[in-house]
Amino acid sequence: MAEAKTDVLIIGAGPAGLMLANWLSKTGVSARIIDRRPTKITVGHADGFQCRTIEVFQSFGIAHRVIAEGNELTEVVFYNPDDNGNLVRTARIPDTEPGTSRFRHVVLSQARVERFLLDNMKINNGLIVERAVEPQSLSIDNAVIDCLDAYPVTVIVRHLPQDNVSEDEAAITGGPESGLYRSNMFADDAEDAIPQNRQQAGQTETIRAKYVVGCDGARSWTRKQIGYELEGENSSAYWGVMDARILTNFPDIRLKVAIHSASSGSILIIPRERDLVRFYIQMGTIEPGQQIDRHALTHTSIIEKAKAIMAPYTLECPEIEWWSVYVIGQRLCKQVSLCDRVFIAGDAFHTHSPKAGQGMNVSMMDSYNLGWKLSAVIKGVADRCLLDTYRSERVEVAQQLIDFDRKFSGLFSGKPAVAEQAGISVKDFRNLWLKSGKWTSGTAIQYAPSLLVAASSAEKELLAANIHIGSHFESQIVVCIADAHPVHLGDRLISDGRWRLILFAGKLTQQAQRSRYEKLCAELVSTRSPIKQYHVGQDVDSFIEVLTVVSSERSAIDMTEYPDITRPACGPHGYRKYNTIFADEVSYHDGGGQAYQGYGVDAEGPGAAVLIRPDQHVADILPFDACVSRLSAFFTPFIRQVCQ
Amino acid sequence: MAEAKTDVLIIGAGPAGLMLANWLSKTGVSARIIDRRPTKITVGHADGFQCRTIEVFQSFGIAHRVIAEGNELTEVVFYNPDDNGNLVRTARIPDTEPGTSRFRHVVLSQARVERFLLDNMKINNGLIVERAVEPQSLSIDNAVIDCLDAYPVTVIVRHLPQDNVSEDEAAITGGPESGLYRSNMFADDAEDAIPQNRQQAGQTETIRAKYVVGCDGARSWTRKQIGYELEGENSSAYWGVMDARILTNFPDIRLKVAIHSASSGSILIIPRERDLVRFYIQMGTIEPGQQIDRHALTHTSIIEKAKAIMAPYTLECPEIEWWSVYVIGQRLCKQVSLCDRVFIAGDAFHTHSPKAGQGMNVSMMDSYNLGWKLSAVIKGVADRCLLDTYRSERVEVAQQLIDFDRKFSGLFSGKPAVAEQAGISVKDFRNLWLKSGKWTSGTAIQYAPSLLVAASSAEKELLAANIHIGSHFESQIVVCIADAHPVHLGDRLISDGRWRLILFAGKLTQQAQRSRYEKLCAELVSTRSPIKQYHVGQDVDSFIEVLTVVSSERSAIDMTEYPDITRPACGPHGYRKYNTIFADEVSYHDGGGQAYQGYGVDAEGPGAAVLIRPDQHVADILPFDACVSRLSAFFTPFIRQVCQ
Repeated sequence: MAEAKTDVLIIGAGPAGLMLANWLSKTGVSARIIDRRPTKITVGHADGFQCRTIEVFQSFGIAHRVIAEGNELTEVVFYNPDDNGNLVRTARIPDTEPGTSRFRHVVLSQARVERFLLDNMKINNGLIVERAVEPQSLSIDNAVIDCLDAYPVTVIVRHLPQDNVSEDEAAITGGPESGLYRSNMFADDAEDAIPQNRQQAGQTETIRAKYVVGCDGARSWTRKQIGYELEGENSSAYWGVMDARILTNFPDIRLKVAIHSASSGSILIIPRERDLVRFYIQMGTIEPGQQIDRHALTHTSIIEKAKAIMAPYTLECPEIEWWSVYVIGQRLCKQVSLCDRVFIAGDAFHTHSPKAGQGMNVSMMDSYNLGWKLSAVIKGVADRCLLDTYRSERVEVAQQLIDFDRKFSGLFSGKPAVAEQAGISVKDFRNLWLKSGKWTSGTAIQYAPSLLVAASSAEKELLAANIHIGSHFESQIVVCIADAHPVHLGDRLISDGRWRLILFAGKLTQQAQRSRYEKLCAELVSTRSPIKQYHVGQDVDSFIEVLTVVSSERSAIDMTEYPDITRPACGPHGYRKYNTIFADEVSYHDGGGQAYQGYGVDAEGPGAAVLIRPDQHVADILPFDACVSRLSAFFTPFIRQVCQ
Repeated sequence: MAEAKTDVLIIGAGPAGLMLANWLSKTGVSARIIDRRPTKITVGHADGFQCRTIEVFQSFGIAHRVIAEGNELTEVVFYNPDDNGNLVRTARIPDTEPGTSRFRHVVLSQARVERFLLDNMKINNGLIVERAVEPQSLSIDNAVIDCLDAYPVTVIVRHLPQDNVSEDEAAITGGPESGLYRSNMFADDAEDAIPQNRQQAGQTETIRAKYVVGCDGARSWTRKQIGYELEGENSSAYWGVMDARILTNFPDIRLKVAIHSASSGSILIIPRERDLVRFYIQMGTIEPGQQIDRHALTHTSIIEKAKAIMAPYTLECPEIEWWSVYVIGQRLCKQVSLCDRVFIAGDAFHTHSPKAGQGMNVSMMDSYNLGWKLSAVIKGVADRCLLDTYRSERVEVAQQLIDFDRKFSGLFSGKPAVAEQAGISVKDFRNLWLKSGKWTSGTAIQYAPSLLVAASSAEKELLAANIHIGSHFESQIVVCIADAHPVHLGDRLISDGRWRLILFAGKLTQQAQRSRYEKLCAELVSTRSPIKQYHVGQDVDSFIEVLTVVSSERSAIDMTEYPDITRPACGPHGYRKYNTIFADEVSYHDGGGQAYQGYGVDAEGPGAAVLIRPDQHVADILPFDACVSRLSAFFTPFIRQVCQ
């Protein structure tokens, strides 16, 4: 039997798996990613990309592709029965509350984003998904579990025979009954949509891995191997979901719409890219223990139900791209790793209803959280103790998600209050929606104090009142000293595995403040500074990149007068970095001038340093005079000394 | 000898040729495009994309690619000698004056934009460039010149032998001496950078074309065939140009910089994409009639000269991607067609210095102007008389360009005034730069009254004070009724060959105004309306698309209550258009609410209709009550009746 070694084996090439593969390929860690299906999906499945997810896409350079192809959701409209039971529009709210993020909620087929992640992996280091490969057994060698160079996990996989036809392949040749039109394929997906000739077809292979991550969905094979289960219950409600191009006289068909009909059930309308509309349609309820009869449910029965709910508005669906039926349930597995060697991520550890658009997003954020930590440990930069923060950080998020979804989908499936009858109140529903907006956008996640998140304090709050340790670093527009570009600071926090230290240097035209800043810059390159201690190779910014934001004018001080560490010479030729020093001022064309105020940093004050993790979460806020000593104290517990 | 027919034969696959090919492929006209070179260029050549050019790219869906890969120029800085002859920064101005366009000046290798145009052609209808094909003779059959179905132009072309090695191929294998590094190639250019095996290699072919367009550069073969010459003189100044990655202590290296040194000459610095810097370096002068000795000029001599001009600042160039040497000259050919059957465009009809970043832009705008006209004539929609407006509109622009360039490059090549000595004044130079900003951005072009541009009048100025007939339609942000998206109206003017009629419908919550608007909409679908008369096939918006902008609130009137013509049912399924009706109000996230004010249309007034050509230039401004009759009068002289 063939044998191979890899640092990380990813099982499952959905959004969570591809996000992880993307991280690992970006940071140059050896990885393999396998998937049962012989082909990539091309239509259907999840479709909502929350603000925070798009921020992460931006950090990998693919946000513009999502925005260009996707449809931005701008407004949510609510329809409820009036006292006569007739549907009326009862409220309008913005889909993304202004100020939430520099990005907005965008909908696009999951298949397209998988394409973008696949493209990135290929560019990063040529990593590709091995399709039609099925894991068969998993074992761990406990003896070497704490040994950094060992490959303690053994997975035997089977490369499926060439003639093995999956559900998807059957579907791909079908008509609307199968819910999948091949004609809708994108040109750049063509290669991945056809099963490839594979040399190893029909063979088994032993893969020895340092780490295995199961991103293999709600019925996770990996989770079963390590003996865990999803806990929780399915509800009694089952829903249909459909992507179609339609004819209607409903006036708000290009808005996001939540309809509670008087007695026919509820519907959620999501206007999609390529003139598609997604419908989530409440189909009915089942008794406890009963299964839905999937064969009795067709696209026709889904459309009939939708018509009944939307009446008296008309609905015709000449082109259906995809449809499915699902039962709502909230289930969670609170154990997400075995010995921090085998992990599960995404649907493998939490499942819930799709209507709040959270599943794919939280799943990708799981593996986004795990990826840089795995990479740092595998590269020998960080201790294995880092990995436990995946559990502590993500299980809490998953629990919040489950709690939210139970409330949200309950309100969605409930019958509305009409006239004197009891039921879901319009106001309660809209208020929950509004209140949960920040949470569902993904920007409200705040990790608790840990190895990677310093505790807050009054001193820190004084330094930067609106920067929250544990939360992701929010973006403000600043102006680059070197090229006068307006720059979203968030765009500078690219996902390349590096930490960042943002120096809010204050008014450098004041000599005392300039001295304070230059003193700190000198300390940052001293031998006791983590920047020097942990950088690898010739580039001083390889472990921590230093960014400066001044409150003095851009043109007051030439960039050549800034200390070397703030614009280091890098690479074999020693070229200077030019996108590291910024001024908080109004740009010629695109805003700016509100960064200090936005972050709550005193523009005339003594400065503040903000330490940011490779995943853009704020790790600590530091005063200039104790910056280097506190950085040392922060990193010492988990960073292995790399340089001399 | 092989024989073939094509509607349009394009000779030359540089920016002008590709822009034309892009138009023709987009509008579904049969075309062939040939080029002498066996491969696509991959580095060097032109690099500046002006605002108006990017607006046009946006209309073809490629602006985002240019912006994503390119570098936006934000600020221009001037350096001049002080009274002691030492270089000092004397002024800063924005590179694109705020308010000029929704886009800014972007620099990017011409090779990349050629890539984007090639990609578009392929997507549109599979059109590709036939490389290593050289025209050998051109003849016109005068007997059938006015016959619409005839192919009066015969061009014999030679498919160059497989072993024919061009300058570029030689260069591609060289080092810095050749000015071309193959290593800098983009992955998506790989196929076009290698000479392909061609079936017809070594053979000649007769191509019969309805139209031939020579986009074959300053030494145009096509121009010679039709017996025209460029007129004008070369100046005595010769310049070097170089793209390199550099080391320097010059503080403004990432800004656009114009340096006049005391006695070493001038330099223009353009910070480019991928950390490149482009330098235009004044090398010296030649005597009248003298030729520059190209073999004596190397990248080393160019760098030495640059060092002297920039002293005391340092300059090292470890990586040179491309370099060249050129003599400044302004030359123009005022005859741009033979019998409106053979045309020349771009450098074939005007050449000048590259420093104002105009050449490639004006060249592409030439063929952008010609493309939709050719397409309309070939499809039988318009009379051939339309084609003469190419000459009248573009020769005037070329003349303005030549006049501007003579002044601009004279100031650039001149010696600065230092202390008491006479010379170029800092102030004059900066003022010309500022004053010419709108013209160089390409947004100031205003075509004179003609068949395609109605004359202005006091009545029209009253209807829309800030919309100028003959100028391109400027963009304002409005909010889409259907989906609440903030939309740049300019983005709706896509290049698909259609005319557009924008109805500024005013306050539709006022019953009188609503009646006036509905009356116009009814007239627009009457049998005497050009919309009905000239539309082709099933879609009523195939000749003129109607867009509505209201000054009443978006939510005041549901989209389903607007007249059918404003949101027509199109395509085989009769799907409604949803992006045709807009409100002038503030959007949730991205501005808006200033359109009526910006266009100078009275928000409480009787409305105004603006007719826009397929190239976004304003053709006429019409009052609602005379709209249809004036549209008829406008189109009758050149549109051939298509429908009944």
